[in-house]
Amino acid sequence: MVSKNQIKLITSLQQKKYRKQEQLFIAEGIKVVQELLFSNFELLYLFTTKQDFLDVSKDKVHAITDSELKKISALANPNTCLAVFKMPNPKEWNENGLILALDDVRDPGNLGTIIRLCDWFGIETLFCSEESVDIYNPKVVQATMGSISRVNIVYGDLELFLKESSLPVFGTFMDGNNIYQEKLPKEGIIVMGNEANGISPSVEKLVSQRIAIPRFGNLQLTESLNVATATAIILSEFKRS
Amino acid sequence: MVSKNQIKLITSLQQKKYRKQEQLFIAEGIKVVQELLFSNFELLYLFTTKQDFLDVSKDKVHAITDSELKKISALANPNTCLAVFKMPNPKEWNENGLILALDDVRDPGNLGTIIRLCDWFGIETLFCSEESVDIYNPKVVQATMGSISRVNIVYGDLELFLKESSLPVFGTFMDGNNIYQEKLPKEGIIVMGNEANGISPSVEKLVSQRIAIPRFGNLQLTESLNVATATAIILSEFKRS
Repeated sequence: MVSKNQIKLITSLQQKKYRKQEQLFIAEGIKVVQELLFSNFELLYLFTTKQDFLDVSKDKVHAITDSELKKISALANPNTCLAVFKMPNPKEWNENGLILALDDVRDPGNLGTIIRLCDWFGIETLFCSEESVDIYNPKVVQATMGSISRVNIVYGDLELFLKESSLPVFGTFMDGNNIYQEKLPKEGIIVMGNEANGISPSVEKLVSQRIAIPRFGNLQLTESLNVATATAIILSEFKRS
Repeated sequence: MVSKNQIKLITSLQQKKYRKQEQLFIAEGIKVVQELLFSNFELLYLFTTKQDFLDVSKDKVHAITDSELKKISALANPNTCLAVFKMPNPKEWNENGLILALDDVRDPGNLGTIIRLCDWFGIETLFCSEESVDIYNPKVVQATMGSISRVNIVYGDLELFLKESSLPVFGTFMDGNNIYQEKLPKEGIIVMGNEANGISPSVEKLVSQRIAIPRFGNLQLTESLNVATATAIILSEFKRS
């Protein structure tokens, strides 16, 4: 059973404004929900059409029908469960190791993939400019496959953050140095730009080291790599050495 | 103007069966359409709400309204143009250089991203198992951003292809050798597996070199990389050396 008030609350959480106001977000699908249950995210409700969740206190689990799930799901093809979690407070974080910073990455799938990459490569902190897509957007939560619980994600003024940091700042540009030939440090900030416009001019001024992923195609027509695949290659290069 | 018969034809092309029967596919959005116009793909129709296409013969261009575009578009938020192209015949291809082979990659966005990566890294041939998603699926065409015209893509029996090839066959497995420490050749076949199941057991038997992308996260919970980001890292490693 899902009450009218719950339907109203849960569908409102598809919008950033209400997520912020309620400090709640939704996660869908058995895999993502289970990963978040195993983390220290606090569960509010869990709606399920199928599975037993043995470790979850019974007052939070609600059996629902497929048609009820359809009413609350953000997905075109709803899964078998949907959970509402409380947003955690960002953890304390230190300026050491590698930090990834996003300059207005807007696509939820890209942000989700990037969070998964941070988790894989042991990047503890992901700094997102305020215009970047919200990590609690249902499509982002979906694409992270649970990694969202293991990366500390901070939103803020990217220019201020770079200005105040003493770490070297890396940015990808067509005219940058070949990343395969650079000596890459263990500490630094790597800035990745917006899907359409790349790194913005005001942030570009704060980049101390311009790097590039060489292109190997015969024709010089390939315009660019997708931001998530470029992030994969860059994090791999920083970590492999 | 778009006629009833055109609407019927174009919407039918959202299904693989009709694409195959008609040997036609659709592309949407100014960027993708323009890239395909500049390639040697043969145009059948071009419908547009806005742009002028000066280089296209007038009898193929049809001005349409937003509501007409909505009727023929495969997108939730239609762009400003939609084109119908004829499928090219696969080019002749030789077994040299690096070949990427996909073992049942099912997600259109992943295939599109992988085609873009092939274009970037100069991989001339992409071999797809018959169960892989169709490259002329509108979502794949969209995600390739035009790269589809620059990579030769072949569908066929992957096991047979690997059996008949004399090239070394690389596959990614958890227990594979650290890719950062391997001497990687200039010629070979790299097999990437299905999103959920990885490389299938029958294909695994034909892999001669097992490789792995090391994981750096502190917690051993990160399950896997997305197939497109794993492909990005692997192609980068093969090409950087």
